[in-house]
Amino acid sequence: MGYAPFDVEHVLAALTLKEKAALTSGRDFWHAKGVERLGVPALMLTDGPHGLRKQRSGADHLGLFDSVPATCFPTAAALGSTWEVDLVRRVGEALGRETRAHDVAVLLGPGVNIKRTPLCGRNFEYVSEDPVVAGEIGVALVDGIQSQGVGTSLKHYAANNQETDRMRVSAEVDERTLREIYLPAFERVVTRAQPWTVMCAYNKLNGTFVSEHHWLLTEVLRDEWAFEGLVVSDWGAVHDRVAALDAGLDLQMPAAGPRPDEAVVDAVRAGMLDEAVLDTAVRRVLHLIARALPALADADSTVDVDAHHALAREAAAAGAVLLKNDPVDGAPVLPLDGGDGLLVVGEFARTPRYQGAGSSQVVPTRLDDALTALRAATSTDLPFEPGFTISGGPTGDDDAHRAAAVEAARTARTVVVFLGLPGPDESEGYDRPRLGLPDNQVATLEAVAAVNPRVVVVLANGSAVSLPWRDRAAAVLEAWLGGQAGGSAVADLLLGTVAPSGRLAESIPLRIEDTPAFGNFPGEGGIVRYGEGVLVGYRWYDTRGVDVAYPFGHGLTYTTFGYSDVRARALGEGADVRVEVSATVTNTGDRPGAEVVQVYVRDPEASVLRPTRELKAFAKVALAPGESQTVTFTLDARDLSYWHPGLRRWVVEGGTFVVEVGASSRDVRGSASVEVVGQPLWGELTAWSTLAEWMAHPVGGSLIGAVLASDDAPPMDETMAAMLAQTPARVFADFGLSPLTPEQLDVLVEKANA
Amino acid sequence: MGYAPFDVEHVLAALTLKEKAALTSGRDFWHAKGVERLGVPALMLTDGPHGLRKQRSGADHLGLFDSVPATCFPTAAALGSTWEVDLVRRVGEALGRETRAHDVAVLLGPGVNIKRTPLCGRNFEYVSEDPVVAGEIGVALVDGIQSQGVGTSLKHYAANNQETDRMRVSAEVDERTLREIYLPAFERVVTRAQPWTVMCAYNKLNGTFVSEHHWLLTEVLRDEWAFEGLVVSDWGAVHDRVAALDAGLDLQMPAAGPRPDEAVVDAVRAGMLDEAVLDTAVRRVLHLIARALPALADADSTVDVDAHHALAREAAAAGAVLLKNDPVDGAPVLPLDGGDGLLVVGEFARTPRYQGAGSSQVVPTRLDDALTALRAATSTDLPFEPGFTISGGPTGDDDAHRAAAVEAARTARTVVVFLGLPGPDESEGYDRPRLGLPDNQVATLEAVAAVNPRVVVVLANGSAVSLPWRDRAAAVLEAWLGGQAGGSAVADLLLGTVAPSGRLAESIPLRIEDTPAFGNFPGEGGIVRYGEGVLVGYRWYDTRGVDVAYPFGHGLTYTTFGYSDVRARALGEGADVRVEVSATVTNTGDRPGAEVVQVYVRDPEASVLRPTRELKAFAKVALAPGESQTVTFTLDARDLSYWHPGLRRWVVEGGTFVVEVGASSRDVRGSASVEVVGQPLWGELTAWSTLAEWMAHPVGGSLIGAVLASDDAPPMDETMAAMLAQTPARVFADFGLSPLTPEQLDVLVEKANA
Repeated sequence: MGYAPFDVEHVLAALTLKEKAALTSGRDFWHAKGVERLGVPALMLTDGPHGLRKQRSGADHLGLFDSVPATCFPTAAALGSTWEVDLVRRVGEALGRETRAHDVAVLLGPGVNIKRTPLCGRNFEYVSEDPVVAGEIGVALVDGIQSQGVGTSLKHYAANNQETDRMRVSAEVDERTLREIYLPAFERVVTRAQPWTVMCAYNKLNGTFVSEHHWLLTEVLRDEWAFEGLVVSDWGAVHDRVAALDAGLDLQMPAAGPRPDEAVVDAVRAGMLDEAVLDTAVRRVLHLIARALPALADADSTVDVDAHHALAREAAAAGAVLLKNDPVDGAPVLPLDGGDGLLVVGEFARTPRYQGAGSSQVVPTRLDDALTALRAATSTDLPFEPGFTISGGPTGDDDAHRAAAVEAARTARTVVVFLGLPGPDESEGYDRPRLGLPDNQVATLEAVAAVNPRVVVVLANGSAVSLPWRDRAAAVLEAWLGGQAGGSAVADLLLGTVAPSGRLAESIPLRIEDTPAFGNFPGEGGIVRYGEGVLVGYRWYDTRGVDVAYPFGHGLTYTTFGYSDVRARALGEGADVRVEVSATVTNTGDRPGAEVVQVYVRDPEASVLRPTRELKAFAKVALAPGESQTVTFTLDARDLSYWHPGLRRWVVEGGTFVVEVGASSRDVRGSASVEVVGQPLWGELTAWSTLAEWMAHPVGGSLIGAVLASDDAPPMDETMAAMLAQTPARVFADFGLSPLTPEQLDVLVEKANA
Repeated sequence: MGYAPFDVEHVLAALTLKEKAALTSGRDFWHAKGVERLGVPALMLTDGPHGLRKQRSGADHLGLFDSVPATCFPTAAALGSTWEVDLVRRVGEALGRETRAHDVAVLLGPGVNIKRTPLCGRNFEYVSEDPVVAGEIGVALVDGIQSQGVGTSLKHYAANNQETDRMRVSAEVDERTLREIYLPAFERVVTRAQPWTVMCAYNKLNGTFVSEHHWLLTEVLRDEWAFEGLVVSDWGAVHDRVAALDAGLDLQMPAAGPRPDEAVVDAVRAGMLDEAVLDTAVRRVLHLIARALPALADADSTVDVDAHHALAREAAAAGAVLLKNDPVDGAPVLPLDGGDGLLVVGEFARTPRYQGAGSSQVVPTRLDDALTALRAATSTDLPFEPGFTISGGPTGDDDAHRAAAVEAARTARTVVVFLGLPGPDESEGYDRPRLGLPDNQVATLEAVAAVNPRVVVVLANGSAVSLPWRDRAAAVLEAWLGGQAGGSAVADLLLGTVAPSGRLAESIPLRIEDTPAFGNFPGEGGIVRYGEGVLVGYRWYDTRGVDVAYPFGHGLTYTTFGYSDVRARALGEGADVRVEVSATVTNTGDRPGAEVVQVYVRDPEASVLRPTRELKAFAKVALAPGESQTVTFTLDARDLSYWHPGLRRWVVEGGTFVVEVGASSRDVRGSASVEVVGQPLWGELTAWSTLAEWMAHPVGGSLIGAVLASDDAPPMDETMAAMLAQTPARVFADFGLSPLTPEQLDVLVEKANA
């Protein structure tokens, strides 16, 4: 079949009901359907937020085997830690080029679900615990990929924050928490980048399968955010296609057999499903095919594999986070001063972990390991000891490895120890069993550190691990799952060829008991309660004053930065308010480096509990030694707002706001207060409004005030006043506490709302 | 009207529909209706868990003024801290006698709501953060009161754990949390003591007003717990009487005007309300009147006011908790060695706070203050300095008081400082504004402690306060709101006339941010999410490893205790399992004293998150110096169970249980492990059961096992196996991963459940 353009409305008009129903499900595991008789081709959609996983025909679907080689870029966990949208956009462009070169129409990513718990098995595919970071990185990826004429699938929409029981569990989340935490990254990507498709998640939200969730798929996604693309199901997420179509789903994947298509035909014929709803879905399917045609018609399959590998290396380096770098013998242990006296320990140095398991698993075009890269860069035959087995196999093996590593460490000048999570710990389909590294690895680290003070730990893992041993290491570099060039990127950073510039996009907690979802993860009886509400990630740790190992936004480099002239001023008011923020950053060290300037907002006077601080903007600034730059940000009303649970809209509550500028959520370098004129917060008064609500109302206040001031009103001391404030007017009237009768109250209600 | 006995069914049969409807609402503020033409008298119901608040006619209803004098016993907070059910039962008997003497039929108490947060304004009326303590104390009170021929009203049923927006707020609580935390105290009192009435709360539970909550008022209360009495509304809690009657409410209080009665008549006539439902409610109203008659017919109004005051003093002393008692100059600062050199500081010493505000406020028969009691007991004219103003009035006053107190403290041998919450901080109708004491009081304490190392703090407050200053005091005695004899009880304890024996029935947290409900209290937009689930009180602090100032169960006395021979053994299995626990306790000091032996259970192998430890039994044991006693407890299946959220029943999950015996939740003195044979945990299998659920099923396991073992099943590594375990069988079949077709799966489901 060729790739000739076609007219969507013309094709739609020519389709039978049966053909239309058929177009809303997949042809096979990886293809949507076309319409052969009308020259409409079938599209291929394939996995891969950080690389193309195009399976060869005949391969198993879930498995990880036998897909065509493609560049394995750093996972989203690493890309998120770059805080560098231009770089991530370039990664997106490369992903798009590879997708196009393989005749694939849609790359199934990026994933912007919020990291609710470090134990989510799929966190490596997600960006951050913060919606601004997740959203900005998501926008950059979608923009980049789609710039190449292929589509993306923004996933997994929504409230899919765990793998345990993911195909059935109901995430119980209140609307304010959805609006402030779990939806904004999707909202930002949809409104700013218009992904060709959005993928609905497997789980239920508040009792309804997301694939059948009209509020989520239509009211929020299309009516509010103006999404123009197609909603595709996660593979196997549709339970009832008719209900799903009605809710706003357009395409069920993968192939589902004839029954669901027949059910759609029957439902239309029986008048249970409006044919216009089906037409809308089909129109979106056809539109997706139409917009994919130009790239498919272009037969250029060249990919600059070397350039993409270099880009993967650049991105991996930019996403690694230098957590600590203490001085030993008077100077920070990093960067290394070459290979002399250097010992490399840890199996991960030669057997890299560079991606997670599941549908995102790419067959890389090549694979760098840190050991080879360090040897090449230092032109030395660096000694290496595995130190442990990754699988934690027979204890004897580990003991021998450990003893050999310790022996070698005694005489080494500096030891770099590569630790990480074993591959099976991090996968789609199930969650992590523990927060920490395996005991056998920690034992090796502690034994090595006991004989050598210059220990550098390099970590390979897709989401935060606890670091109870961190005082034993002079330096810790969190390299995440850095993709196929992660090994050489680590060598670049250790040797100082590249300066570390990553910042934590997720807090590193001390203990699993400290994490926000503890006790509410992974849920019970088919329900997971988001009991921590909006207090997710650093919003929890900072607001509750819980210590962490390393805070959100943290990351060191080989120079230092000073902040000055932090200023903020408010312009306009209410829904039109803007806050202009500026700060000057100076490289105060003697090496070049990049700082991530972070802008947090606090609303200390809010009438609901708000997090102590929330990130609203950031900028990554590269500075030469001694160089200064003034960075400016403009915050808008939304950046000051919370979602009012009663009024069900965003509100700017007037009063003093505090703008903080700093290098992490716990390293605020300057702050400024601004007075903001807010929006009215009252709603309609009813007989069940409390006296306090009456008093706060512009009309009701004087009406009820007159009643309370009358001679027959009850005597008012401090206690009585406080008690009455919370009493509904109706109870006040019923109790005969005043001359106000229930009938008179009804009149007041009418007057107040007139 | 007289108090002649009548036959309930006879009267019921004689009533018109209108009369029946009328009987389901109150006559006036404090009376239910009778039926004058049939000689059925109207009953009086009055407030007061810890004393009778019988208002004189014409008094305002909500206000606190002008009720007849009655003994003000210690508040529930103090009674709960006694952990002494025999004593509390005697208090109940005295309350019952006073109720009867004043011709009141029902005393509106006790309150057994769980203290979800220390900020609940009405915590002083509640017993504990633990359902076993709350339930046992509640049983004792109901037994005692009802032994006198008058009724009780167990309140506020249920999930009424805050005052903020109490008349409208919806408590969002999952069933497991209700069953394990918020309902068991009610269940224990209902099943063991059959209170004459249960009072339904104001709030909503999961969106439905409790007064209209059929599951709560009928399915749980009557069908499961076999409650035989009447359900009365909290005053003003009924919104729709027809819906309320249908749900299981019997009596709306107070008087509500003619409209709701007419609505009932109309609903019956229109066939919207089954007249049998109305008859049942009326039958219960008549039955309540009938059972109240004998006591009402007995005109004996004598009350032994002195004996009741003495009992109030005994109970206040038993409920006070000695939090700390450090040695100064080689010996603990308490008990005081007489009045020589003693200085009393703090306005609360002469102006006692002894009860909370709101409907429970009693006009006492007399009132002891600690200053007078200490002077009398030491036969000295002890010096006194107010130290601060309770209201925190003009700063100048506080400064002058503080300076005088410091001056006096310089030369005193020992200073007893009386601190507490100002009265308006603790009331029905609104919640506490802060966790700590007022700054002016703390400033005085710190200033005094700076010049004198022998400082004893005595606290007056109705629920936990934070104690950041506790290192400045050598001893701290938490006296709660101790009723009218609280002042003399404190003198008894300070001087050692009585040994402290109270234990904390609520944890004392370090900071409000550490408390379980922080972030989920008091809710927003009409909803309060119980996001902490079952992790309430010490269950939260111990399971999450959060430090506290003083743990649940803690309390010192003037002697010490040793524990030995902690043993446990399991008998029977499943639903019939029993665990016999024994421990020997020895008074290892040189003064008599009482120990509260606490038995906690842990289920470390549960398949749901369970608290690290849960109190299941306790006993207060008085021992002479050197004396030993072996205490035994029998735990039953329920004591080992959790509420299975999927199966919706209590389950004993087999495996190892740990029984801990100790002096607080953080002072475990001995433990024993028992192996318990549990109950089956599987339910019916469906196509949407996961493969792991299939494998765990006694029949389904082999059926699905055969499929997975077939040659066509996917290759299985560790990752694939873990992923498939969580995959519903239906998705497994749909994906074509095995020879299993969706049709064959339907057959397997049928076979498995056959």
